[in-house]
Amino acid sequence: MKDAAAYDKWYGYTHPSPALLAESVYGMTEFARDRLRGARVVANPGCYPTATLLALGPAVQHGLIGDDVIVDAKSGVSGAGHNVDDAFLYGTIDGSVRTYGVPTHRHTPEIAQGLCDLGSAPPRLTFAPHLIPMTRGLIATCYATLREGVTAAQVTEAYQDTYRDEPFVRVTRSFPATKATLGSNWCLVHATVDEANRRLVAVGALDNLVKGAAGSAIQNMNAVLGLPERLGLEALPLWP
Amino acid sequence: MKDAAAYDKWYGYTHPSPALLAESVYGMTEFARDRLRGARVVANPGCYPTATLLALGPAVQHGLIGDDVIVDAKSGVSGAGHNVDDAFLYGTIDGSVRTYGVPTHRHTPEIAQGLCDLGSAPPRLTFAPHLIPMTRGLIATCYATLREGVTAAQVTEAYQDTYRDEPFVRVTRSFPATKATLGSNWCLVHATVDEANRRLVAVGALDNLVKGAAGSAIQNMNAVLGLPERLGLEALPLWP
Amino acid sequence: MKDAAAYDKWYGYTHPSPALLAESVYGMTEFARDRLRGARVVANPGCYPTATLLALGPAVQHGLIGDDVIVDAKSGVSGAGHNVDDAFLYGTIDGSVRTYGVPTHRHTPEIAQGLCDLGSAPPRLTFAPHLIPMTRGLIATCYATLREGVTAAQVTEAYQDTYRDEPFVRVTRSFPATKATLGSNWCLVHATVDEANRRLVAVGALDNLVKGAAGSAIQNMNAVLGLPERLGLEALPLWP
Amino acid sequence: MKDAAAYDKWYGYTHPSPALLAESVYGMTEFARDRLRGARVVANPGCYPTATLLALGPAVQHGLIGDDVIVDAKSGVSGAGHNVDDAFLYGTIDGSVRTYGVPTHRHTPEIAQGLCDLGSAPPRLTFAPHLIPMTRGLIATCYATLREGVTAAQVTEAYQDTYRDEPFVRVTRSFPATKATLGSNWCLVHATVDEANRRLVAVGALDNLVKGAAGSAIQNMNAVLGLPERLGLEALPLWP
Repeated sequence: MKDAAAYDKWYGYTHPSPALLAESVYGMTEFARDRLRGARVVANPGCYPTATLLALGPAVQHGLIGDDVIVDAKSGVSGAGHNVDDAFLYGTIDGSVRTYGVPTHRHTPEIAQGLCDLGSAPPRLTFAPHLIPMTRGLIATCYATLREGVTAAQVTEAYQDTYRDEPFVRVTRSFPATKATLGSNWCLVHATVDEANRRLVAVGALDNLVKGAAGSAIQNMNAVLGLPERLGLEALPLWP
Repeated sequence: MKDAAAYDKWYGYTHPSPALLAESVYGMTEFARDRLRGARVVANPGCYPTATLLALGPAVQHGLIGDDVIVDAKSGVSGAGHNVDDAFLYGTIDGSVRTYGVPTHRHTPEIAQGLCDLGSAPPRLTFAPHLIPMTRGLIATCYATLREGVTAAQVTEAYQDTYRDEPFVRVTRSFPATKATLGSNWCLVHATVDEANRRLVAVGALDNLVKGAAGSAIQNMNAVLGLPERLGLEALPLWP
Repeated sequence: MKDAAAYDKWYGYTHPSPALLAESVYGMTEFARDRLRGARVVANPGCYPTATLLALGPAVQHGLIGDDVIVDAKSGVSGAGHNVDDAFLYGTIDGSVRTYGVPTHRHTPEIAQGLCDLGSAPPRLTFAPHLIPMTRGLIATCYATLREGVTAAQVTEAYQDTYRDEPFVRVTRSFPATKATLGSNWCLVHATVDEANRRLVAVGALDNLVKGAAGSAIQNMNAVLGLPERLGLEALPLWP
Repeated sequence: MKDAAAYDKWYGYTHPSPALLAESVYGMTEFARDRLRGARVVANPGCYPTATLLALGPAVQHGLIGDDVIVDAKSGVSGAGHNVDDAFLYGTIDGSVRTYGVPTHRHTPEIAQGLCDLGSAPPRLTFAPHLIPMTRGLIATCYATLREGVTAAQVTEAYQDTYRDEPFVRVTRSFPATKATLGSNWCLVHATVDEANRRLVAVGALDNLVKGAAGSAIQNMNAVLGLPERLGLEALPLWP
C-alpha cells in the first residue's frame, strides 16, 4: 500500500518505515517492468491480487469496464500458510466450502490500489474469498460492467494484445482449471462477455504458492536485476 | 419456467405440455406453501436456484435490494448427476476448480423467474457456477446493490423474520460451511452488508442431493398433501 | 484388556480399577450378546479391532486359519479424534498416505485378545495402520494362512452362516468400498482365498465414527438393556 | 516377464515376440545397471513392482527374510491411467477406499520374478492393491518373516548400504508420506522390525507417474546410453 495509514486500518499495525513507501514498486511484474529495473524496494503482490489484476488488467487498461467490480475468489488452504488451527484441519476442510473475510480481507485495498494503478477510477470493489477443499490453486472470478459500446471482440483483442508476449500469462479459450497451473509460475486468464447483462466475467487461475507467492518474487527479482524473467521458473505444471 | 418458449431457448427442447405450465406451482416450499396445498403439478427447483432464492428471498421480499444481481455458485460434482465423462473423473476434479456455463447455464432463467416471483423487477442477473473438488454440497454467493437508506439492521431483521419458523432454513451468525448440511435437508443462510460499497453479500449453503433435490421434492409433496413438512426429512447432518 | 498390566505396557497408564476388569464384557456385540445382557461394565471396541474382528471372526470361529495374522488397515483422519496438530492439517493429509504405529499401536493387543476370545491361539499378529486422505471410513485388510484342507467353499459358508441374521454386518460379493457405509452402523465384510498361496484375505469396512465408535456403543447399550438392537441405528448410508 | 507363457496366463494375450524375451533387461535401474548399459530391449517396471522391489530389495539381497511375503499396496487413481469409467469418477473415489485385484493382479508375477532376480526363492507372495482417494502417489507396505538370528541393526545396515549412493532412493528415519515425492523421481524407503513377531515391515513410497512410470523409463534410458542417471529427472517434489 502506498498510503501508510492503510496499514493501521487494514493490517492492524503501523508501518515502521513509511518513508520507504514512496520509493517502493508494486511488483505486478507484467504491468511494472519499467519501474522494477533497478528498484530498491519491491512489494510482492498477494496471491488474490495477482490473479485479480491479471484477470482484469487488460479490461482496465483498455478502458472497457466501469468501476463497479466484484471479485469472488476461491483458494486452496495453502493460501493461509502453515497454520495449525482447527479451521485448517483435514476434517474441517474436506468436502466443504465457505466464504470468509467479507468485507474486511486485507487484500481488498491492495486490489483496489492495483486497479487504480492500471487506470481505473477508485473502484466500488467487493472482494469475497472462499476456502475450498484443495491444497494449492486459486481462482479469482471477476465481474464488472462493460462500458457502453464495448464489444466482445474488443474484449478478446485486449486480452490477446496484453498477454501476447508474456512468459507466464496465457489467455485460454475456455474457463481454465486451476490444476493446469500446479507447480508452475503460470497464470491462466479467460474473459467472456455476458451480453444480455452487459457484464464482463474474467477469471485468473494460478498456483498460489508459485505465481501467487515465491514465483512472482523470483520473477520480480529477475526484473530488478535485468536477468531473463524465466530464470528459475521454467517448471511445467504437473498433470493430473 | 412459466414461459414455454424458454424451454426452447435454454433447455434445447420444446415443452411437450405447455397447457400444464399455467397450472404448475414452482416449489420453493418456503415461499409457496399456500399454492402447493393440493397442487396437481409442482416444478421442483434446481439445486442452484434453491440456494440462491433462499439466500436472496428475504432481501427481495422486503425490498432491500435493486435488480442488479450476481450469483457466483460453487458445487460438488454430484450436482452433475451420475455422469461418466472425462470432466468428472477423480483425476480431473481433485485439486482443481473451474468456472463453467457462463452465461448459458439453464438455471439462469429459473433464478431470474424465482426472483421476480418474490417481487423483484426482472433482474440484470449474471450467474456463474463453479465445479469444486467435493462430492456433495453447494454454496451460492449472491451480490446485490442495497437500496438507498437500507441499513444492516434492516437486513438482519428481514432474514430473521423470514426464516424464524422455517423447519429447514437456518440463519447463521457467520458464513456457513456447506459441510454443516451434509445429508440433511437444511439450508444455511447468512447475509452481510459491505457498507463501503453499499452491497449485500448473501450466501445459501445446502446439500445439493437433499435440500437441492430429492429433499425439496419430499418437502413439497408433504406440503401438497397437507402432511407435516418434516416428515421423512428429520435426518441430521453428519459431521465431520 | 482383561490383563491390568497391559494398560501400563500399551497405554502408558495404570488401570485405576483393575477389580472391575474381570466383570467387564468386551463389547463386540455380534460375538458377545449373551454376556452383554445385563452387564454392568462394557468395554466398547476400538474402530480398528471392530473391523478386524468382524473380518476374521468367522474364519477363527470355524477353525479355518492359523495364528499367523497380518492386519493392514487404512483409516480416514477422524479416527484420530478432533486433534489440532500439524499431522492432521489439510495440507498434510490431502494427496498422501503413510503408515504409522508399527509395531506399537494400542489396538494391537486389543485385536490379539479379541482373536483369542473367538478361539484363536495367541496370534503372531502384526498390525499396521495407515492414514489416508479421507475424513470418515476405515478398512482392515487381514491376511492369514489357511489350515490344510480348508476350501474356498468352506470359507464362503462360514461367513454366510455367521452373519446371516446380523442387522449390521453384510457379507458382500466383491471387495467393498468404505464409502458404502457412510453415516451408517454397517460393517461390510468380504473374504477371498488366494489359493496359490493358501491364504485368506478378508476385509472389514465401516464408518469409524459409527460402527467403529458411538454406533457400536449404542448397539451394546441396546443389548445390555434387552432393547431391539437396531434402535437408534436405522440410518442408511449416504451415497455418494 | 521372462516366461512367454506368463503373458497368456496373467495378461490375457500371447506375447508377439517371445524371441526377444531372453535378451530383454528388467529395468529396476538400481539393481540392473550393469545389464542396462547398451541394452536393446528394456522392460520398464510397473508402479507397484518398483515400490515393492525397492522396499524389499536390500532384505532379499542380504538374505534377511524368508520367501513368505505379503504386499499390501495403496495407490492414487492415476495408476489406472486415463480411464473414463464409473469406477474412477470423483463421486466414486472421493472419501472411499477399496481392495481390488486379489489374487489376480498382473503385477503379482512381475513382483515375484523381481524378488527371484534379487536372490529370493520363489516367494509365497500375496499382493493386494487398494485404490485410495488421491490422484498421484503409491505406497507398498511389505511384510515378510525375518530369518532366524537376524537383528534390527542388520536390517538398518542393509538398507543404508544398498541405497547410500542412489540418486533417487532415500532411506527415511520414519514412515514416509507419499506426498513427499510428488512430481519427483524419488522413492522413499523405510524398514522396521516387529520384533515380537519376527517380521520385517518395509515400505516404498513414490509418485506413480514418475518413479513408477515415465521417470523410471528416463532413468533406464540414461543408464542404457551411459548418460548421467539424473539427466532430466532433477525436479524436486512439490510441497504441500
